[in-house]
Amino acid sequence: MTEKSDPWLLTPGPLTTSMSVKRSMLHDWGSRDKEFIRINQAVREKLLAIANAQDAHVCVPVQGSGTFAVEATLGTLIGPKEKAVVLVNGAYGKRICKICEYHGREFVALETAENIPSDTQALDKILGDDNTITHVVAVHCETTSGILNPIHEIATITARHQRKLIIDTMSAFGALPLDAQQTPFDALVASSNKCLEGVPGMGFAIIKQDTLEHCKGNSPALSLDLYDQWVAMQGNGQWRFTPPTHVLMAFHQAIVEHEQEGGVSGRGARYQNNCHILVNGMRELGFVTLLPDELQAPIIVTFCMPNDPAFDFQTFYNRLSEQGFVIYPGKLTVADSFRIGCIGRLGEEQMHAALDAVRTTLKDMGVSNCTPAVAA
Amino acid sequence: MTEKSDPWLLTPGPLTTSMSVKRSMLHDWGSRDKEFIRINQAVREKLLAIANAQDAHVCVPVQGSGTFAVEATLGTLIGPKEKAVVLVNGAYGKRICKICEYHGREFVALETAENIPSDTQALDKILGDDNTITHVVAVHCETTSGILNPIHEIATITARHQRKLIIDTMSAFGALPLDAQQTPFDALVASSNKCLEGVPGMGFAIIKQDTLEHCKGNSPALSLDLYDQWVAMQGNGQWRFTPPTHVLMAFHQAIVEHEQEGGVSGRGARYQNNCHILVNGMRELGFVTLLPDELQAPIIVTFCMPNDPAFDFQTFYNRLSEQGFVIYPGKLTVADSFRIGCIGRLGEEQMHAALDAVRTTLKDMGVSNCTPAVAA
Repeated sequence: MTEKSDPWLLTPGPLTTSMSVKRSMLHDWGSRDKEFIRINQAVREKLLAIANAQDAHVCVPVQGSGTFAVEATLGTLIGPKEKAVVLVNGAYGKRICKICEYHGREFVALETAENIPSDTQALDKILGDDNTITHVVAVHCETTSGILNPIHEIATITARHQRKLIIDTMSAFGALPLDAQQTPFDALVASSNKCLEGVPGMGFAIIKQDTLEHCKGNSPALSLDLYDQWVAMQGNGQWRFTPPTHVLMAFHQAIVEHEQEGGVSGRGARYQNNCHILVNGMRELGFVTLLPDELQAPIIVTFCMPNDPAFDFQTFYNRLSEQGFVIYPGKLTVADSFRIGCIGRLGEEQMHAALDAVRTTLKDMGVSNCTPAVAA
Repeated sequence: MTEKSDPWLLTPGPLTTSMSVKRSMLHDWGSRDKEFIRINQAVREKLLAIANAQDAHVCVPVQGSGTFAVEATLGTLIGPKEKAVVLVNGAYGKRICKICEYHGREFVALETAENIPSDTQALDKILGDDNTITHVVAVHCETTSGILNPIHEIATITARHQRKLIIDTMSAFGALPLDAQQTPFDALVASSNKCLEGVPGMGFAIIKQDTLEHCKGNSPALSLDLYDQWVAMQGNGQWRFTPPTHVLMAFHQAIVEHEQEGGVSGRGARYQNNCHILVNGMRELGFVTLLPDELQAPIIVTFCMPNDPAFDFQTFYNRLSEQGFVIYPGKLTVADSFRIGCIGRLGEEQMHAALDAVRTTLKDMGVSNCTPAVAA
């Protein structure tokens, strides 16, 4: 088999997947086929197990990207007369606010800067002060910066105030622990295409059944109605509307490979090692990370843009790409930056090779100083 | 390469795709990659060309199944104070009504029985009588029965009354002609996974640019906002949210193969031949079609359930499946029935083999009479 050699995707997704995951898409499946239904059910059960959420939660899949799954969960769980507080420190928190606006749902944004974790004291206070707030929405790892938010503390505070918690754990699920028995939540949302290393095209929510049972009629869109999808799937095991069959089969294979790697701890350890190699290597070259190490999730790392006039990001990006490494532009408002991801089917070898490519590129560009204008 | 031999999917989708379409999913693509952006643009242009709609229309893709694309189009095009008339003669027409209910949009359903084409006289009358109606929504081929609706006449009447027309041409696009220069429409909606023979996971709308430009703020959901998606894609060529990269690459390959087959006329001729072989063969065995030939689209055929007590549909279905042919249950309310599809990567050989399998199965089951209780 001669396949064109793909570049390594050092991005937050779409990311590099294993050839065995991709090869599981070489078949056509009927969506009402018994075997397809069995595998779909297996995927749902395995996802619940990853969150240790088999007791009280159900897993509801949905077509589309991660944002579709986030929007479906918000639309299904937050009723017309309810009110959310959204913890914002990046583009994904802001997108949650935008979705609430589309849905006509009242919300308060509790915002911190992109390099500052969500403010749990402020959350505690607002939940104490405003008893019209029914839901808290938090982002586990904000891909905008790569920051890890204090999700356990957020969950504990939300539970103490007896409000409902929705966690966007898109870029963390499967690599960072999130255990329903220890971190209470009403819903978490993630996708096939991040730390579980499937291909993009579907997402899912893990929702407390007690909560979901009261969500009939909330959703502003039929396609995104997770209550309706859950009821239908409980009935006949099928998706309401044509599922992305190939994506689902790839996702199943990806989850099997996640298990084989040792689940969350095995996957998390590889990414942590990738991140460690990347950050150390880049620092040796003089780059400065946006975040201190204790706030850095091992998912994606933001580097401040070097101040050296010889450094041009587009040239840097293109040359790395020519050498087979795709990195990611920055999305920050607080500082000029770029990002390099640690997730996907990548290990030590690829991270070292990426660093070699960075080193060569800097030399070719004549960059001598990688420190930013103002060090973070 | 030894792959398990897949069954032939004689269904309205997911359907059988070519191995070359599936093999195009053996790569990982960054969604901001220049080459990916170029191919995405090529897909959009080729889709416009299939509808001969390059002059005044734009193509907007959306993640998810066909229903996601239909809902996105309805939500984007029909404003909060507008009103639709929906032509209904099956489950997909009813689903359009349900979507209007979710969106809180006023609508009138103009319903005919599942074996009767949409009533163009009634449409003409209601558009003349009710000047608050702004949109007409029609289903080109209603997969519930397989009926072909008089789309050209519907378009002509709608244009004469100067209302906007949205066509759900999900199961017909690419096989039955729909030419924007001859059949005026504001939007048509279809998916990657029907007559274009891609894999499921994305849909698209072809929308008159003049119309779309006035649709800002209509959509009840961010993910499904085709105005917002169009503006963003005009800007940087990218999808707003992670596209199903593998599905898109497969779709591109599928469209190339559609061109190679001679476009709509070539693809349509193969399906017409498939349908002809199927209907003739089944009639020889004594089966009765729901529809007379002049109403039958060459997409999927509804057969009335035989009255012979030896005929059990589940047994029939399972035995055909064991022989490698997946058929489809019925969805009619007017008669007990089942369906067999003519679309996907199937030709004469597979249709004849399917008929052989039906013949063998009937013999094994001891069925001697395939006529229904009351012949249609």
